[in-house]
Amino acid sequence: MSAGESPWPPVGVVHSAYDQTEDTPIQSSLNLSDLGSVELVAAARPGLLGLDGFSHAWLLTWLDRPDDPGEASTWVAVPFLLRPTGEQKGVFAMRGPRRPTPLGLSLVSLLSVSATGFSFVGVDLLDGTPVLDVKPYVERFDRPAGAVRSGWFDELDPPDGIRPRDLGPTSR
Amino acid sequence: MSAGESPWPPVGVVHSAYDQTEDTPIQSSLNLSDLGSVELVAAARPGLLGLDGFSHAWLLTWLDRPDDPGEASTWVAVPFLLRPTGEQKGVFAMRGPRRPTPLGLSLVSLLSVSATGFSFVGVDLLDGTPVLDVKPYVERFDRPAGAVRSGWFDELDPPDGIRPRDLGPTSR
Repeated sequence: MSAGESPWPPVGVVHSAYDQTEDTPIQSSLNLSDLGSVELVAAARPGLLGLDGFSHAWLLTWLDRPDDPGEASTWVAVPFLLRPTGEQKGVFAMRGPRRPTPLGLSLVSLLSVSATGFSFVGVDLLDGTPVLDVKPYVERFDRPAGAVRSGWFDELDPPDGIRPRDLGPTSR
Repeated sequence: MSAGESPWPPVGVVHSAYDQTEDTPIQSSLNLSDLGSVELVAAARPGLLGLDGFSHAWLLTWLDRPDDPGEASTWVAVPFLLRPTGEQKGVFAMRGPRRPTPLGLSLVSLLSVSATGFSFVGVDLLDGTPVLDVKPYVERFDRPAGAVRSGWFDELDPPDGIRPRDLGPTSR
């Protein structure tokens, strides 16, 4: 129930402009004006073959700096976006970074693929975040067929670039 | 570069009808007629609060049984769907289960949430696969804005329910 060092060897690292969770936009899809990059470890670079044909990718990351390492339980919490009301949700019904297994899932828009990694727009990660896997976004696999209900998110309309700090102090 | 037991405690386990990778449909989105479930460990069950408002969820899993544990390198390989031609792709441009960090990402359609877990349609996982995290599908976060290119997948039209076994033997 704590983060810190990844239990798996990372395949790379995120470079971004952020070093504090409270200042980091809460979702990559809400922060499309911001540039980041992934630098792969040398051994992993052959794995980029073919990635330049894709417009988007998933970053699976190890969220190594939880905003509150002293938090005793992460099963139920107040999501960033619900700080104004203090309403709690189960961790499996929210997307925040304080999770039992602190895996991040970020959808990014690919800008360019180089010999050592790639650059993207859509940044919701701290600088230095370990990258565990990169998967190409495949429309047929990753877009639900039929109607979608997004739970409590459907009642909100967060502005682009919103950060936890904009949503007031943690309430618990 | 090998799978086996997860180095992180799972939050639950997948129940499905499959016990061989070669017989398991290759993507949950291509297998929407099939029923599976996730059973959470007792401690994790409060994390379900609010999940019933969502139509879809992401399962982040530990792919603990690679189809070929003797494979020396996973950085470049022939994807299941390209077995007929033998063409190789980098692991970051494919979605197969043989990955440097064997994390699975499955989009499932939620059927019902119970006190102990949930049932879903869209099965691409072996029975007993450890679940590391569950995240709700949020349309605004998980659907790309603008045009999408899905690389080499755009040239294929795999039928629903296709399995590795249907695509011929491994070519390498």
